[in-house]
Amino acid sequence: MSSVRSDIIYIGKKPLMTYVTSAIIQLATLPIITIKARGQSMGVAIDVSQIVLRKTKPAFSIADIKIGSESLVSSDGRNRDVSTIDISIKRNTP
Amino acid sequence: MSSVRSDIIYIGKKPLMTYVTSAIIQLATLPIITIKARGQSMGVAIDVSQIVLRKTKPAFSIADIKIGSESLVSSDGRNRDVSTIDISIKRNTP
Repeated sequence: MSSVRSDIIYIGKKPLMTYVTSAIIQLATLPIITIKARGQSMGVAIDVSQIVLRKTKPAFSIADIKIGSESLVSSDGRNRDVSTIDISIKRNTP
Repeated sequence: MSSVRSDIIYIGKKPLMTYVTSAIIQLATLPIITIKARGQSMGVAIDVSQIVLRKTKPAFSIADIKIGSESLVSSDGRNRDVSTIDISIKRNTP
């Protein structure tokens, strides 16, 4: 956790290409990264992974995809389940 | 292709619970189903799979998740890449 480089990219509200660039930069030095998102951002995570693969073809591929749910407490104090996705992208061995 | 029962559920614009119900009905008689979506509907596909698993716990689990892209011709005549997700849900062996 003391490393400056992170192998996890959390998808938030920034423009899509911000995450694409960030992912490609991380993949320059790391063998595997994971793109994480939840709720409305899950579609963006899938788009980011596809654009990264397309732009860097054929250097990387999908290593793993996990989906799940998390229980969040919403602003009205109720529990709400939100879906999550984790997409791992790895460097292809030559 | 002549079967009335389909093992594929395409996510569209209907209310989320329509697809959940439909998936659970199909899983009553089929060992595996696949939930497919593209673009904006991908998040709904993930939500549907999670709700199906939660409501039927522990009868089913995720068998496979695939993501990809398709090239569509949009209304202005240009090619547009759209991401896709296929989530397979299978019955757990007892």
